[in-house]
Amino acid sequence: MTVIEKMGACAKEASRTLAVAGSLKDKALYAIADALENNIDKIVKANEIDIKAGRENGLTESLIDRLYLDDKRIKGMADGVRKVAAMSDPIGKVIRGNKLPNGLKFTQVTVPLGVIGIIFEARPNVTADAAALCLKAGNTVILRGGKEAINSNTAVSDIMRSAIAQTGLPADCIQLIKDTTRASSTELMQLSEYLDVLIPRGGAGLIRAVVENSKVPVIETGVGNCHVYVDSEADLDMAAEIIFNAKTSRPSVCNAIETILVHKTVAETALPKIKEKLDTKNVEIRGCEITKAVLGDSVVTADETDYETEFGDYILACKVVDTIDDAIAHIAKYSSGHSDCIVTNDYNNANKFTSEVDSAAVYVNASTRFTDGGEFGFGAEIGISTQKLHARGPMGVNELTSSKFIVEGNGQVR
Amino acid sequence: MTVIEKMGACAKEASRTLAVAGSLKDKALYAIADALENNIDKIVKANEIDIKAGRENGLTESLIDRLYLDDKRIKGMADGVRKVAAMSDPIGKVIRGNKLPNGLKFTQVTVPLGVIGIIFEARPNVTADAAALCLKAGNTVILRGGKEAINSNTAVSDIMRSAIAQTGLPADCIQLIKDTTRASSTELMQLSEYLDVLIPRGGAGLIRAVVENSKVPVIETGVGNCHVYVDSEADLDMAAEIIFNAKTSRPSVCNAIETILVHKTVAETALPKIKEKLDTKNVEIRGCEITKAVLGDSVVTADETDYETEFGDYILACKVVDTIDDAIAHIAKYSSGHSDCIVTNDYNNANKFTSEVDSAAVYVNASTRFTDGGEFGFGAEIGISTQKLHARGPMGVNELTSSKFIVEGNGQVR
Repeated sequence: MTVIEKMGACAKEASRTLAVAGSLKDKALYAIADALENNIDKIVKANEIDIKAGRENGLTESLIDRLYLDDKRIKGMADGVRKVAAMSDPIGKVIRGNKLPNGLKFTQVTVPLGVIGIIFEARPNVTADAAALCLKAGNTVILRGGKEAINSNTAVSDIMRSAIAQTGLPADCIQLIKDTTRASSTELMQLSEYLDVLIPRGGAGLIRAVVENSKVPVIETGVGNCHVYVDSEADLDMAAEIIFNAKTSRPSVCNAIETILVHKTVAETALPKIKEKLDTKNVEIRGCEITKAVLGDSVVTADETDYETEFGDYILACKVVDTIDDAIAHIAKYSSGHSDCIVTNDYNNANKFTSEVDSAAVYVNASTRFTDGGEFGFGAEIGISTQKLHARGPMGVNELTSSKFIVEGNGQVR
Repeated sequence: MTVIEKMGACAKEASRTLAVAGSLKDKALYAIADALENNIDKIVKANEIDIKAGRENGLTESLIDRLYLDDKRIKGMADGVRKVAAMSDPIGKVIRGNKLPNGLKFTQVTVPLGVIGIIFEARPNVTADAAALCLKAGNTVILRGGKEAINSNTAVSDIMRSAIAQTGLPADCIQLIKDTTRASSTELMQLSEYLDVLIPRGGAGLIRAVVENSKVPVIETGVGNCHVYVDSEADLDMAAEIIFNAKTSRPSVCNAIETILVHKTVAETALPKIKEKLDTKNVEIRGCEITKAVLGDSVVTADETDYETEFGDYILACKVVDTIDDAIAHIAKYSSGHSDCIVTNDYNNANKFTSEVDSAAVYVNASTRFTDGGEFGFGAEIGISTQKLHARGPMGVNELTSSKFIVEGNGQVR
């Protein structure tokens, strides 16, 4: 057995205990939160090694910032874990049940998924967040973080493991792979004997690699090519507000928009209003011919690639469309199926859009930035699923569960 | 674009229409059922070619029987399609909904998965069954059947396609890949741009190949290494009845049992009762040393491999265990997580078993043979999922859906 296979076997063994641990899970979570706060110095010291190495290896300041941990951030991690502990237990809920005609009592109940693998990049806070969510839903977790954060991740996971062990649950509920070479993530993707699910968290490259190479079922997260369609019946000031918010409040995140579609009958009035607001943040507009005719030469000509791209930046593609059907067709072609919005006051157009647009979240008259586990009231989230299997959209603890059927009889045979 | 890529693009395009087709789906299903019955001659003629080729290629009689279609079987297919049509629509159901604190109206509704690929072996009836279930749930389907049934499958799918087109829905709601070389199924497994899910239906080899090679999310079905545990507090006559039924009523199916575990305190009384019934069907017993000591020399010695094997035949492995915990540990190690049963009259042992055994269906005092979409009241089933992601256990039309969030506001920004 390799090191990672052994970790898989230990995780599976520990998952049998954790699956029936009940309120002991919360006790472990509160112990983890306290332990994180009681060991701030240790975590900061480990983090300093990562930060120093990062600087030496020429990481950008924004990556250094993601990596950085201090008092406040570690307390934030601890508070996040406490929030997860305070949620209601997602395990053991009855989903459906009835008496079958032959007298069998039939009940479907929620159970943990089992063993979850998480491959993530340079954010050490994911170690605590993700582990807490997995544990709350009765899942053991094998974490494989990026090499940039290995010292921070090791400190955080060691602290969590001792805290768990002190509450009487197996320390192996949480394990961290210390080998950060590509070989270790490749091996994790092959570990179908022990892993029930693999969740990649990070950039598009990481996610694609996992989806393409994993033999373990994967939940794909986080790719967002999102749209706002300004309908002929839109409140144009509201449209400009929503577009400004959805583009500029945090351009790097997956629920930010990349393209707006504007109905031709309002293009001449709407586009200048929209541009005026976007100009305050120097957003580059890449538009179709009509957009350029209305807005003038500051607009770059958009090509096919622009409509396909998740800019993650202060860049917005723009296309004037003839009909709502054209807008819906554009979204069907280019959207990543994350979050798409219509701005309209027309009842039928709103219903048509929400019915025909097939994305995880479909909005009427609100910013796509609300697609988030916290905003939706799910508490913390492990990621935003952009696939249709299992869970779609923000995934909280309830989405980290499976179910089983319990069938009770008195001797029935078939 | 290759032929199969084009099929993918057509399926995706058609899925946009089908997703909002409402009751037109049922009209299409009834039209399909009528068309199948009106074209019995055509189907039988195509089937005769397959049967003739099968005989020439030396297929076993049991495979020939699976392949064979006649009046009665085709009428059965049509009736199956009508049953699916009569079910309530799984699409557009509200799963949850509330008003968020910021005034956003938040609703999660069921939607189709989108495009489903199904790779199956030599049963031409799967063509109609699977296509009907997919269509009912608003999904378009690309079928890739085995070469042995290609003429039958082509006839059935052509008939279904014309029937669909006559109701005004796109014929491409159902497509059959005519190329039955390995290359076509390999290509289907790579078609992640168009396919939302891939479901293999067939033997363990096919399923393993799809799970290991697919870049499309897969639902793993049908592997069943199932157990009955005879507790110290069991009604031993009931145990013998359940074991006899679960082993011999249809040994080839996935919900049949492969191993029994017997508590040591009842082994001496229980085993002869069990053997007496099994002897009427000449079931071979492969047992541990204690089993052999009780039952004598007719029992073959069981080795590790026997506990791992889905015999699919009149063979049963048997092990005497010291405690219920040993039984649960054996199941955790060897069960495929399909269906496992305890026979007991002890309340706490029953609860312990249903709580700690992590299988899709966990039984108390009833035959594992009930794990079936029809028996569970789901109507027809597309397969029995043995994975934990998305759906677990029998999958009916409700398990062929995803969901989306509809978020309605009046200008909310974040």
